[in-house]
Amino acid sequence: MAKFYGIGVGPGDPKLLTLKAVETIQMLDVIISPISEKKKESIAFNIAKSYIPEGIETVELLFPMVDDKEALVSAWKNNAEIVSQLVSSGKNVGFLTLGDPCVYSTYMYLVPYVKSNGVEIETIPGITSFCAVAADQNIPIAEWEEEICIIPLKHESDSLERALDQFSNVIVMKPSHDVERLATALKTRGLESSFKLISKCTTEHSNVVDTVDALEAGSIPYLSTMIIKKNGFK
Amino acid sequence: MAKFYGIGVGPGDPKLLTLKAVETIQMLDVIISPISEKKKESIAFNIAKSYIPEGIETVELLFPMVDDKEALVSAWKNNAEIVSQLVSSGKNVGFLTLGDPCVYSTYMYLVPYVKSNGVEIETIPGITSFCAVAADQNIPIAEWEEEICIIPLKHESDSLERALDQFSNVIVMKPSHDVERLATALKTRGLESSFKLISKCTTEHSNVVDTVDALEAGSIPYLSTMIIKKNGFK
Repeated sequence: MAKFYGIGVGPGDPKLLTLKAVETIQMLDVIISPISEKKKESIAFNIAKSYIPEGIETVELLFPMVDDKEALVSAWKNNAEIVSQLVSSGKNVGFLTLGDPCVYSTYMYLVPYVKSNGVEIETIPGITSFCAVAADQNIPIAEWEEEICIIPLKHESDSLERALDQFSNVIVMKPSHDVERLATALKTRGLESSFKLISKCTTEHSNVVDTVDALEAGSIPYLSTMIIKKNGFK
Repeated sequence: MAKFYGIGVGPGDPKLLTLKAVETIQMLDVIISPISEKKKESIAFNIAKSYIPEGIETVELLFPMVDDKEALVSAWKNNAEIVSQLVSSGKNVGFLTLGDPCVYSTYMYLVPYVKSNGVEIETIPGITSFCAVAADQNIPIAEWEEEICIIPLKHESDSLERALDQFSNVIVMKPSHDVERLATALKTRGLESSFKLISKCTTEHSNVVDTVDALEAGSIPYLSTMIIKKNGFK
């Protein structure tokens, strides 16, 4: 029976797809191409390109970049309708996501609506950016009884500061959103060199920043992840 | 040049290894077999078995299960010495880890000591148990500006309760350590059915528990991971 597949393609290196992801991609009839979402998914497409069947049907879905929740839900419902009809016509439809489909992905916005149409769904996990960053540096994200807090950097919330004050390891997603605030949070806590930030990890453009001076001096790309270890590095 | 490899084999399904993990395993000369560590790594070996070269040299390393930090460090140094000598003799040595090597793995205890011997190290990331659980249930671990806290359940710390009180999504590692306390923490916050716990996810023995009644009634296996979503499920 045909399904709607959410497939994690990992952080960038095509060898970091799982065998299951590759096998699933190879049997797809349709690939979703989300548009107007900071081009995030075209990166996913490029990572998986060598595994995608040649001449596969591509369906563009519009995900508007607005804050209006009603407009967003309306777009998701509309997109879910398109996906559901494709699957109901017997086609295996795939939505590729950078990293893992369950960690901050656009794919997940469609899932409840596709599910409510009675369409079967399968999600294939992927390597997250933070696991890739830690592996690149041969460092643990956490050991023993240490906690890990994953915080998307946003202006409106103090979750970064709360996490840093209470937990041993903090992962900052989208650190480029507010580098100044991030630098201040690190400096006021004596964590000037207790972090690794990697942009475009596992690709040929991979770049490591690990001092506050370098953080403040450079421009940090959108595709970056930071691991802060309050107990430092061994 | 020969290296010491830490290789994540994912949560259980052999198809959830990455292409890179499989390729690396196939070129190993030696596989480390850690003993006396709750048999965790023999599970990793079994997951990867079909990719491991036949007749490969296996080296047993003792990781004592004690709380004495000095005894532990001494064992790690000793094990790192054995690994370093093997790599220096030109052999590619692999340490397989369940899930991801940077998320609470035994492999990471060796890394600083092997590194200090000047041996080259490469870590290959893996699919974490929590990504596998979320994928199995087709649910997001986090969306939008939500945070994720990952907490290993331990008696001595109140990090579980602090995380639940402050952050939207909490992942509990090793929930079997104290099911009673976990149930209490959920009940006092009205989260009786706001979680998914899966044991042996992605294997044929996979089992889902998603109500406090079932949590308290059953015996929870060691290899389990719980995702608590305070905003519930869609």
